[in-house]
Amino acid sequence: MDAIPTTMRAVLIKDYDGGPESMTIAEVPVPRPGPGQVLVRMEAAPINPSDVMFIQGLYGFKKPLPAIPGFEGSGTVVAAGSGMMPRVLPGRRVACAAAAPDIVGGTWAEYLVTSATLCVPLRKEVDMEQGANMLVNPVTAWALLEEARRCGHGAVVQTAAASALGRMVVRLGRRFSVATINVVRRPEQVDLLRKEGAEHVLDVNDAGFDAKLRELCHGLRASIGFDAVAGEMSGRILRAQPEGSRLLVYGALSQEASQVDPRSLIFEGKRLEGFWLSSWLRGKNLLDQFRMLGKVQGLLATDLNTEIRARLPLEEAKRGLEQYVSRMSSGKILLLP
Amino acid sequence: MDAIPTTMRAVLIKDYDGGPESMTIAEVPVPRPGPGQVLVRMEAAPINPSDVMFIQGLYGFKKPLPAIPGFEGSGTVVAAGSGMMPRVLPGRRVACAAAAPDIVGGTWAEYLVTSATLCVPLRKEVDMEQGANMLVNPVTAWALLEEARRCGHGAVVQTAAASALGRMVVRLGRRFSVATINVVRRPEQVDLLRKEGAEHVLDVNDAGFDAKLRELCHGLRASIGFDAVAGEMSGRILRAQPEGSRLLVYGALSQEASQVDPRSLIFEGKRLEGFWLSSWLRGKNLLDQFRMLGKVQGLLATDLNTEIRARLPLEEAKRGLEQYVSRMSSGKILLLP
Repeated sequence: MDAIPTTMRAVLIKDYDGGPESMTIAEVPVPRPGPGQVLVRMEAAPINPSDVMFIQGLYGFKKPLPAIPGFEGSGTVVAAGSGMMPRVLPGRRVACAAAAPDIVGGTWAEYLVTSATLCVPLRKEVDMEQGANMLVNPVTAWALLEEARRCGHGAVVQTAAASALGRMVVRLGRRFSVATINVVRRPEQVDLLRKEGAEHVLDVNDAGFDAKLRELCHGLRASIGFDAVAGEMSGRILRAQPEGSRLLVYGALSQEASQVDPRSLIFEGKRLEGFWLSSWLRGKNLLDQFRMLGKVQGLLATDLNTEIRARLPLEEAKRGLEQYVSRMSSGKILLLP
Repeated sequence: MDAIPTTMRAVLIKDYDGGPESMTIAEVPVPRPGPGQVLVRMEAAPINPSDVMFIQGLYGFKKPLPAIPGFEGSGTVVAAGSGMMPRVLPGRRVACAAAAPDIVGGTWAEYLVTSATLCVPLRKEVDMEQGANMLVNPVTAWALLEEARRCGHGAVVQTAAASALGRMVVRLGRRFSVATINVVRRPEQVDLLRKEGAEHVLDVNDAGFDAKLRELCHGLRASIGFDAVAGEMSGRILRAQPEGSRLLVYGALSQEASQVDPRSLIFEGKRLEGFWLSSWLRGKNLLDQFRMLGKVQGLLATDLNTEIRARLPLEEAKRGLEQYVSRMSSGKILLLP
């Protein structure tokens, strides 16, 4: 193993109000793993919507400033703190997460100290780039489908269906025979989803969108929905769903409040809820998590594959972020420290 | 028993778009009870927010036009259709409801045909005026408190707390040791609720309202809330509640969509739901309904007493409606057919 340097390059944000503008690249000390922790030499880390929210101070928690962004990535464990879990990891290629308030660092850096429980050893057939994307989108797609299957819903309706996550939901839906009703915002996204094998795709700008959506949601009984957009979309989806439906908001791409017709709630028994991967994982015991992660890893080359559109060095994180935000459904941008 | 005439006076609405403007008084045939139904000679019928929604076409169902409004009231059963239930009712003083899509008539008329199952015989100590108000507000207040107690919530937060229903919730809360956090819109409503014995009353227009609301909701663990206002209030209440809370929207006095910060849903596990008395009652068996109605009737003179501010003949229904809408928390307006 190479010697570990004393300093490293990392992306830093200095305040949450400035958003991407406050991002810089800096030379900072390489952190040391404490008890239960490991040091990962980072290989790749994607830009996700949750990172965008974090940088804007809109995520579920804030880290002390200056903070290193990046909630997930992949790399090689090069040092370990005390404890049974950390000791088995050195030398292993892992997918790793920093999406917890007690993890000080982020994945947009040359090194990350994180909890050993937030590292998943990668099978040899999984490359670092797919591994870097495993713990957010593929696990979320799996969780959403599991939620739909657990409650016996015949179909799901989802917004932002052309996103990386949305496409995974489409493919997993086909695998598990759960029909998906897919809402997008542009004609080329309709084509993209058709190529994925999606049967039901609706463009929100098409004439008669709401009536068609209602017809599909009632016909297929889409009593569960996943919404990454919020704003007025939440209410339009909920209105279209059959009586007693649930809509799970898991993102807020519109950056607006979810707007829901009270009559959907009162007279039709519909509910607006949230979905947060961190909460969902906390509800699972370690064995269930282990099994789930095994299944997800087994599908990384197929249903849960992530399309990568660009690879950038850390120095270009700001440009990458801008590119990503301007066109979110055209593949992931990976930072390669 | 007096002879039943062939025609009667009734309030009629000719279309739902016109709202109160389309209301007239007309001479129409007295309906005849079918199987399972009874004919009630109406004595008193209140104007409720649900009637206002119905007249505007915003309620959970519409009746064929022209329609007689009025969802509840009281009177004497003067004729019965076939069936065991109807046969025991003639001559009885009853609280009666017309709040079902299959009941053609309404209570704002001299006579009503309704299902025998929607009639509750009144104890002799309950007068017709209190009986006329029993099946909407007192039963809803009971249902909301039952919901709060069933789920072990230590406290409830409610909007429109100075309404007839809101005040009943305050009093029942004191009876059952459930703390209530009461949100109102005017200083005089703060005084009114203090006189009812409410400990926690907040005026939405006071400086620091949101911070105070949050402090109270967290301190008392108000993990369930009742919202009659919708609009931006829904989101403000939900934001103030502790993690994992539920907000039950049961009215839409603002006539606006409920607006909820997606972060309350995603990161704090909060949920926005609806409450409809009809659905709640359908979830109860007849014995439970019977027991509940007995308890509610026993409290009509005290906790579940309705303040009545005016009594008007049917001819003045339109004026009554206007008066009511302009000042909803100043007592009920009763129509006396």
